[in-house]
Amino acid sequence: MEYMPKDVFSIADAKRGDIGNTATKYAQTFFDPTCAGFDFDSVTVAPYMGEDSVSPFLHFSGKWVILLALTSNPGSTDFQQLKDSTGITLYEKVMRKAMEWGSADELMFVIGATRTDYMAKVREIAPDNFFLVPGVGAQGGSLADVAKFGMNKNIGLLVNSSRGIIYAGDDTSVSAAREAKKVQEEMNQLLDIYYK
Amino acid sequence: MEYMPKDVFSIADAKRGDIGNTATKYAQTFFDPTCAGFDFDSVTVAPYMGEDSVSPFLHFSGKWVILLALTSNPGSTDFQQLKDSTGITLYEKVMRKAMEWGSADELMFVIGATRTDYMAKVREIAPDNFFLVPGVGAQGGSLADVAKFGMNKNIGLLVNSSRGIIYAGDDTSVSAAREAKKVQEEMNQLLDIYYK
Repeated sequence: MEYMPKDVFSIADAKRGDIGNTATKYAQTFFDPTCAGFDFDSVTVAPYMGEDSVSPFLHFSGKWVILLALTSNPGSTDFQQLKDSTGITLYEKVMRKAMEWGSADELMFVIGATRTDYMAKVREIAPDNFFLVPGVGAQGGSLADVAKFGMNKNIGLLVNSSRGIIYAGDDTSVSAAREAKKVQEEMNQLLDIYYK
Repeated sequence: MEYMPKDVFSIADAKRGDIGNTATKYAQTFFDPTCAGFDFDSVTVAPYMGEDSVSPFLHFSGKWVILLALTSNPGSTDFQQLKDSTGITLYEKVMRKAMEWGSADELMFVIGATRTDYMAKVREIAPDNFFLVPGVGAQGGSLADVAKFGMNKNIGLLVNSSRGIIYAGDDTSVSAAREAKKVQEEMNQLLDIYYK
């Protein structure tokens, strides 16, 4: 993977979730460069299969698990927001359980930018964890709202715009660069507001 | 994929689960041979992200979605069996919702062989759907119990033993063949009992 710059935080957005035996192999594949040549900094993981599907990705020195919690897509309302008899939602259960498995130095959560009505709540559940926030751009999430409700004392946000940038304008690299710059400038303004 | 025999039902056990845009690309990758050269008969899909992460895999003529419901691994107790205020478990919600998205001719469920205490219940929820049943072999599930509680009028079971076969005995193909034959003979006996 020579084309991947070493000084940029890399995310394998693979949304893996499998039994422990397979999860261990996936973790080695993404994190151990002697295995398949990959040296990703992080990988997205799906929680449905529980602890043994998530834990093998944790405790790799300097590597991160980014666990799906409250995603940005329409289908996130189908199961993630189901409530148990005490009113706790599935995404909250996922976050609280996962925080028993790994520390805030190795575990982030995916929290969609289209879910800013829940952003303050998830920040309360996980005050120290970073959130990977997709859904700005093509999916319509507001960067200002994400910053307002989602930041913590270390900023705590990795905001992602993919299709908003790579499919910008006439699909040339110039349009993409312009769109990326626009998002970056908006981020800088928000940092000025909240981190003066 | 010339090495894959055409007369054997193939499963891409990829456990995909992503936003609609990405799910569509994954579905084309596994199912449309003009896309990436794959022509799988089925793919395993994870339900956490909801309808738009599952639907793009449905409605491919002659292809199957195999949706995670109640899996065979220890972590399946972490979230899949959570109950809402009316006592309905997450795996039951997943099954009932998914049955609105696709018919029994295109939708199977993963039901672990280690979960035979639930097998009668899941068969009641989905009387017509096929179940893919992993967990026989290395994970310790009982084929006899799976057959007793899981069969329907079309048999309705695809029982899978992977590590139990490929890592059998001294790891030679002879040991694997012997183990595969053993499982097959046990299946034949069970078919004799229930489908005389």
